[in-house]
Amino acid sequence: MLIIGELINTSRKPIREAVEKKDAEYIQKIAKAQEEAGATYIDVNCGTLLEQEIPTMEWLVEIIEQVTKLPLCIDSPNHLALKAGLAKTKNGKPMINSINDETERMKTVLPLIKEYNAKIVALCVEDAGMPKTNADRLRIADSIITKLTKEGIPLDDIYIDPLIKPLSAGEKHGIEVLEAVQKIMESYPGVHTTCGLSNISYSLPARKVLNKTFMIQLTARGMDSFILDPTNKEMRAALVAATTVLGQDRFCRKFITGFRQGLFE
Amino acid sequence: MLIIGELINTSRKPIREAVEKKDAEYIQKIAKAQEEAGATYIDVNCGTLLEQEIPTMEWLVEIIEQVTKLPLCIDSPNHLALKAGLAKTKNGKPMINSINDETERMKTVLPLIKEYNAKIVALCVEDAGMPKTNADRLRIADSIITKLTKEGIPLDDIYIDPLIKPLSAGEKHGIEVLEAVQKIMESYPGVHTTCGLSNISYSLPARKVLNKTFMIQLTARGMDSFILDPTNKEMRAALVAATTVLGQDRFCRKFITGFRQGLFE
Repeated sequence: MLIIGELINTSRKPIREAVEKKDAEYIQKIAKAQEEAGATYIDVNCGTLLEQEIPTMEWLVEIIEQVTKLPLCIDSPNHLALKAGLAKTKNGKPMINSINDETERMKTVLPLIKEYNAKIVALCVEDAGMPKTNADRLRIADSIITKLTKEGIPLDDIYIDPLIKPLSAGEKHGIEVLEAVQKIMESYPGVHTTCGLSNISYSLPARKVLNKTFMIQLTARGMDSFILDPTNKEMRAALVAATTVLGQDRFCRKFITGFRQGLFE
Repeated sequence: MLIIGELINTSRKPIREAVEKKDAEYIQKIAKAQEEAGATYIDVNCGTLLEQEIPTMEWLVEIIEQVTKLPLCIDSPNHLALKAGLAKTKNGKPMINSINDETERMKTVLPLIKEYNAKIVALCVEDAGMPKTNADRLRIADSIITKLTKEGIPLDDIYIDPLIKPLSAGEKHGIEVLEAVQKIMESYPGVHTTCGLSNISYSLPARKVLNKTFMIQLTARGMDSFILDPTNKEMRAALVAATTVLGQDRFCRKFITGFRQGLFE
């Protein structure tokens, strides 16, 4: 289970403020907290800063890598910011968040994956926009996987994000993704799937309950990575329990350790 | 989602004591509580009483039906106790818990299903015992479904229980059942699957967390019935959230109603 810690993002107010004050210590504390909570990658996103994005990305990568050996997930809509972050990172195999099937994005990001031998989050979006049906979703996933593997990128480096739409906009939006995830995992053995969860519950109450339930259901259909806040104890507990039930926890050791550490209280 | 309320079982101490004291009021209170909490069937099991089982079953059916219109799930290892309960029940279409593929059980219970036009829980067990592999499980399910449908019992009345074994005895026991459930639901469109959850967590700590997680994962693979304590608020909340994410809750109405009633607090 690959966990991408999502907290270092300037769209979150405390991070934006820390970046504005060049408060390296706060950012480093958040990076460490995510590592200690079980993150396997640390996402770094300062896309809200626009003209200041590139120097900020370089600064963030530098200060984060001073306190953690975890690899980073460089996250930006701007391929130049991606390149700046990738050029700076030294911690193991980096990840890029994200590519999609838009012509321009594919053209600018694909070379970066190869140059930096990076893992890649690949979002099911194309020039015509978001998938309208599950058939669209699977067609876009197939198109992206075909293009990436043709360029020599191994399936094991590809994390398809099926694109989560709110239940409030369509009550089948959850089950469609569950079906898509299983289909993708079965059609391309070795590929991975990932997503952020919060879109599913957009504009509904008790969002945490829906996000967590959806996450557990996704694990049952084969999703093997999530972009989330690993310091959220309830989500972490649910993930540990889910992987234990799925038989990915030898002798239930992680579950029992979690219990002893009070994870399920 | 068919919810079989499991609380009226003389293996539970308060029920055994109420039966011994002929405390109809207590039993009736538990029946009502399960109905109010969303049960769709009320399980009735007094198998621990042995020689007193038949008159007790008749008494239980009678007093429970005085306070609820819910149909009953008559539950016994003894086919004579099943018959006694079925002969007594008047509330809609009864359910029998359970048949399996043992020669003797099939011979004694199959006629009862037909005579009382009952729904049936069918456990994946055969003369040779419990399934050792998932192939065994699917073979037994197929054998039972073939025998029942050949006798005219509709798929819609059949609830296959895949037989849950503890994770502590084998870490693949959860994923095997998840796969079996999907396979059974896809192979016999219209059939149902059900189970009790507590076996999965036997001898492990934080059992409620594992039971709940397993339940949510089972919903993602198509299980559409559970034998559980519906008055457990956390389980009920998880089931409502799970069915909402699965697109079985038009306009998320049940979820929003649950939220307003404090179900997710």
